[in-house]
Amino acid sequence: MAHIQVPEGIPGIRSLFMFRPETAKPLLELAETLLRKPSSLTPGERELIAAYVSNLNACKYCTRSHSAFAAEYLKPNEALVEQIKKDPETAPISAKMKALLKIAGKVQHDAKTVTSADVDQARKSGATEIEVHDTVLIAAAFCMYNRYVDGLATWAPEDPEIYRRNAQRIVAEGYLAVPTK
Amino acid sequence: MAHIQVPEGIPGIRSLFMFRPETAKPLLELAETLLRKPSSLTPGERELIAAYVSNLNACKYCTRSHSAFAAEYLKPNEALVEQIKKDPETAPISAKMKALLKIAGKVQHDAKTVTSADVDQARKSGATEIEVHDTVLIAAAFCMYNRYVDGLATWAPEDPEIYRRNAQRIVAEGYLAVPTK
Repeated sequence: MAHIQVPEGIPGIRSLFMFRPETAKPLLELAETLLRKPSSLTPGERELIAAYVSNLNACKYCTRSHSAFAAEYLKPNEALVEQIKKDPETAPISAKMKALLKIAGKVQHDAKTVTSADVDQARKSGATEIEVHDTVLIAAAFCMYNRYVDGLATWAPEDPEIYRRNAQRIVAEGYLAVPTK
Repeated sequence: MAHIQVPEGIPGIRSLFMFRPETAKPLLELAETLLRKPSSLTPGERELIAAYVSNLNACKYCTRSHSAFAAEYLKPNEALVEQIKKDPETAPISAKMKALLKIAGKVQHDAKTVTSADVDQARKSGATEIEVHDTVLIAAAFCMYNRYVDGLATWAPEDPEIYRRNAQRIVAEGYLAVPTK
């Protein structure tokens, strides 16, 4: 049971959006801007960063949600998402994504450990300044969303179909269509 | 030097707001909503939570900024802010603020460690459901802002006057007046 009186039967951060629509608004706008607005990183790549960081934070609801969103964008590839979360270095992804996920992992653990060499490695693999910026902010933002969801002990459903259905809706309609009442 | 090409001479998160105004908008709206919009926690109390968490994350720019903001609201009390950051339990603040800062500290370290007993303690000291919610979200949000600022190695000025001047502007005009270009 959640630590505060959120609406019953609504999972994870969605229950918090309904509890407090005032804060839901900028939180959803941040997600939409970071993860879906036009960018040289595809929405699938950005959702991978979100899933990777949520997994490092062991946030079940966010990990399952953003893994499903990444798989829906990169479809039909749930197995690839699992492989990337486990070990990006050996996964069949670009050198640029490997370098960006390394930076994201450092931001999750201790942001001060990101070095110029990490950023140079990303640049050498083709990452732009904005891609480095967005990777750091996505990783930082999921250190917020994950803590918000777990700090209030919200409900994470077991049924994978729930996450798949949400993924279809997010891909079709985006974060701004997530209900806040 | 910052890891990406931010405008010169602009400190901390302000340089990132100018680098990427698209993400600055929801980040500043979140800060304004969480820290300044009408609430039963005063803006000074909410800035204390922000300063406390930023200090736990050892983010120099955010700690000095939000300590100055808290001191400006609760003025003239920089010493009290320092005492609270060091040890809330022995500081001359309400039992409610002690209970909320305990929750905030747990969210910073590992959000899953927040227990029903922690939340009951806050309730017994007079905290409302929304105050518990907002405390968790403020703590979580500063785990984002702090990582964003440090993950990109932005500049933190030494001169305390810079932080005091920014504090006067934030108290007078709010976060939505922070320049993003």
